Amino acid sequence: MPHFTIEYSANLDARLDMGEVVEIVRKAAVETGIFPLGGIRVRALRCEHYAIADGAADFGFLAMVGRLGAGRDLATRRKAGEHIFNTLSAYLDPVFAGGKFALSFDMHINDKETSWKRNNIHEGLSARPTVIPGCGEDASRGSRDSGPGPSDHPGMTRTN
Amino acid sequence: MPHFTIEYSANLDARLDMGEVVEIVRKAAVETGIFPLGGIRVRALRCEHYAIADGAADFGFLAMVGRLGAGRDLATRRKAGEHIFNTLSAYLDPVFAGGKFALSFDMHINDKETSWKRNNIHEGLSARPTVIPGCGEDASRGSRDSGPGPSDHPGMTRTN
Amino acid sequence: MPHFTIEYSANLDARLDMGEVVEIVRKAAVETGIFPLGGIRVRALRCEHYAIADGAADFGFLAMVGRLGAGRDLATRRKAGEHIFNTLSAYLDPVFAGGKFALSFDMHINDKETSWKRNNIHEGLSARPTVIPGCGEDASRGSRDSGPGPSDHPGMTRTN
Repeated sequence: MPHFTIEYSANLDARLDMGEVVEIVRKAAVETGIFPLGGIRVRALRCEHYAIADGAADFGFLAMVGRLGAGRDLATRRKAGEHIFNTLSAYLDPVFAGGKFALSFDMHINDKETSWKRNNIHEGLSARPTVIPGCGEDASRGSRDSGPGPSDHPGMTRTN
Repeated sequence: MPHFTIEYSANLDARLDMGEVVEIVRKAAVETGIFPLGGIRVRALRCEHYAIADGAADFGFLAMVGRLGAGRDLATRRKAGEHIFNTLSAYLDPVFAGGKFALSFDMHINDKETSWKRNNIHEGLSARPTVIPGCGEDASRGSRDSGPGPSDHPGMTRTN
Repeated sequence: MPHFTIEYSANLDARLDMGEVVEIVRKAAVETGIFPLGGIRVRALRCEHYAIADGAADFGFLAMVGRLGAGRDLATRRKAGEHIFNTLSAYLDPVFAGGKFALSFDMHINDKETSWKRNNIHEGLSARPTVIPGCGEDASRGSRDSGPGPSDHPGMTRTN
């Protein structure tokens, strides 16, 4: 964790580069400093069929849901969520300016008692020869957790 | 809010017009009278790969999840959900008659403390020159809420 | 119920047969013995756009969410979830060996008060002439539940 899943109306393909959108969200999630880098997964799902408000075809939406591990207090989650939302919202200013559009972001907490994971990306990151300024910690800890257990650890922030 | 996301087995494409399905759900949601018109977003996701029951390829499913803002009591949510489900279910009678099929609808409430939105569709609706019979209220209030706050306001029902 | 939805990074298409993956999960769900056969629905959604960890394009993920009906205790859910996760994880060993990859499985419980369903697959199963070794129960009970009510019944396990 965390997971960020975006659902969007197919008509946004003409107004947005969705590859950039997921990258904007990924970077904003990293910047919060509360997530383990190797656990961040952002994706987008194109919805070919949709119906919005009074059914007008030119309306658009982008709806993001974030799923987090348990263990962070509300203030921390709100601050992180606000940063991610504001970053995404600012990026979408031209879409709001160009038409009628609805953006949303809802955050949920996964039940830590029924959560399983296996992840070798953490070790992949620590093995990379990249210099990570201002980060002395090793990201490889917790590289493979299977079975329910402690949730996301505070991760480190990369500057790239 | 509200959000309605449909996931369906790809084999339904031969039996259903999914553009009609999302429109059926949208109209039923409007008819409940408990949602702000500009917040209604229905979409469908086609699942190319699926495995149902004993694995028979001719089985099909349509699974809808609704995500609502907090603040409505259970009786209100049940009544609204029942109307939407019954409308969709009746529309799908021919699919049930023509094969083995599973329909489901589950409703969830988003955490109002970690919910962010920005929406200019409300103002778009109030600016439209369309006559809305039996509705004297202005839908433009709450046209842009960013940051957690009060959830869906009761909206108005259009007759079209 | 139950529902299992998989979201996966599009780059897995070159490494995995997703039709096999949903079948692996379906069989593992049947093997738990706690789900009604006719209620099991597994599907996968391909995510064309994604951003993982530090953004490296060769990272991959497969994230599964299971939605269950209410009524089973935690120990039962954990045991079932662990079986499904371990089966899927073992199947994905080659993917872990071949690259950097994150697998996750989170289980949620649907609110039984706002859950509606209609399903004629149960009766379809009982009408099939297939011999089901070691299973004397009729799967047709509960073949159509509409409206909120009791959740998944313990089902029977087929050996195929």
